[in-house]
Amino acid sequence: MQFTSESVDDGLIERRFTVGDVPGILWTPAGDHDPRRLILLGHGGGQHKAAPALVARARRFAAAGFAVAAIDAPGHGDRPRSDRERRFSAGMAERMSAGEPVAAHVGEYHAAVAEQAVGEWKSVLDALQEDLGEGRVGYWGLSLGAAIGLPFFAADSRIRAAVVGLVGGDLVPVRASRITIPVEFLVQWDDELVPRQAALDLFDALASAEKTLHANPGPHAGVPRFEVESAARFFVRHLP
Amino acid sequence: MQFTSESVDDGLIERRFTVGDVPGILWTPAGDHDPRRLILLGHGGGQHKAAPALVARARRFAAAGFAVAAIDAPGHGDRPRSDRERRFSAGMAERMSAGEPVAAHVGEYHAAVAEQAVGEWKSVLDALQEDLGEGRVGYWGLSLGAAIGLPFFAADSRIRAAVVGLVGGDLVPVRASRITIPVEFLVQWDDELVPRQAALDLFDALASAEKTLHANPGPHAGVPRFEVESAARFFVRHLP
Repeated sequence: MQFTSESVDDGLIERRFTVGDVPGILWTPAGDHDPRRLILLGHGGGQHKAAPALVARARRFAAAGFAVAAIDAPGHGDRPRSDRERRFSAGMAERMSAGEPVAAHVGEYHAAVAEQAVGEWKSVLDALQEDLGEGRVGYWGLSLGAAIGLPFFAADSRIRAAVVGLVGGDLVPVRASRITIPVEFLVQWDDELVPRQAALDLFDALASAEKTLHANPGPHAGVPRFEVESAARFFVRHLP
Repeated sequence: MQFTSESVDDGLIERRFTVGDVPGILWTPAGDHDPRRLILLGHGGGQHKAAPALVARARRFAAAGFAVAAIDAPGHGDRPRSDRERRFSAGMAERMSAGEPVAAHVGEYHAAVAEQAVGEWKSVLDALQEDLGEGRVGYWGLSLGAAIGLPFFAADSRIRAAVVGLVGGDLVPVRASRITIPVEFLVQWDDELVPRQAALDLFDALASAEKTLHANPGPHAGVPRFEVESAARFFVRHLP
């Protein structure tokens, strides 16, 4: 793990890092806190590790006493686009101009990215824990961030609680019955990319003893801001 | 409005009252607060105005600076049982021992109680506002409390925000399209009394621009305690 820069803004230390060819950011509260309590942020498709909405979440979770880390997913942010991204974008444009459903196309792309990204997250978490120490870890990610997160924490018992959503039933690259940690699951009621029933079916199939579904009206990208507060409290409850 | 007793417990003033033959409780924070910010609590079937879970909610909402009031629904608490309650209980016992669905039976009973209870709530709110002043009012009620609340706040514009749930689509005595205030809507995913789809359909049909659905695993009576916190924050957000 290489740290490449460090800055402090409004009580938050921001350190940029790379693990192999994966660039990331680690935020830690400047004041007194337990650095081993860690939230991993998985950004959505077309977003990146320093997107404003992601940084706002990092700030909110850090204010609750967590260290917070985000990385660029394959083909996103500071990482090179591949043919996979170009085919995905072209396929989306085609389907949308033809008025065809996009859910399966999105699901296939998410699964392909996740296959690469899960191993990257494991390596990054290894490296982060060498720096911070081993402690309770949470994962937050919507849409592509959830498609990567679900197989990641199905396979990695270090993740103890997760806020995920904007993904649906058979489109996610993991069997929901393998998920047993507490989950807060977000659904956009009028999601133009994920069929409502597919999202409800995935929530239904999670094997977690504690799972809670939050559904709000609006499109895929319209998750209301108050859900950030809710996620922060969810992590405080499950990663005390 | 007649106040019949007053006590103070742990920073909360509790005044028992009657409006006509409807008995109720008004809780107000002992310290500095705006008494016109008011939450009305509608208890569930078989419960009453002073049930421990209801008092715990009153305490939580009062801690957020609200006055809080609850009344006994017709046939509940300190009010006489009628033939309606006896027929309802007998009908439930019959259906459950025969393994038959109960949703329609519950819905019919709720509608009959609501027809009487809505007018009572209006009179009680009139009386409370004479005492407290006119201000922003919220309503909290699950199951029977929701079946009464929905037609109440569909018809009474003083109610500005509501937390309701554990009721379903065509079983509720009001057209959901008449509901336009912000609503937090609770669903128990394994509700043995309310079919899941009926609950989701009702949420879907609410005309509120801001509505948010919280679903949790478990039976009708198993709403998790953390939803009390969520309801308090919902009221703070919408009744500032």
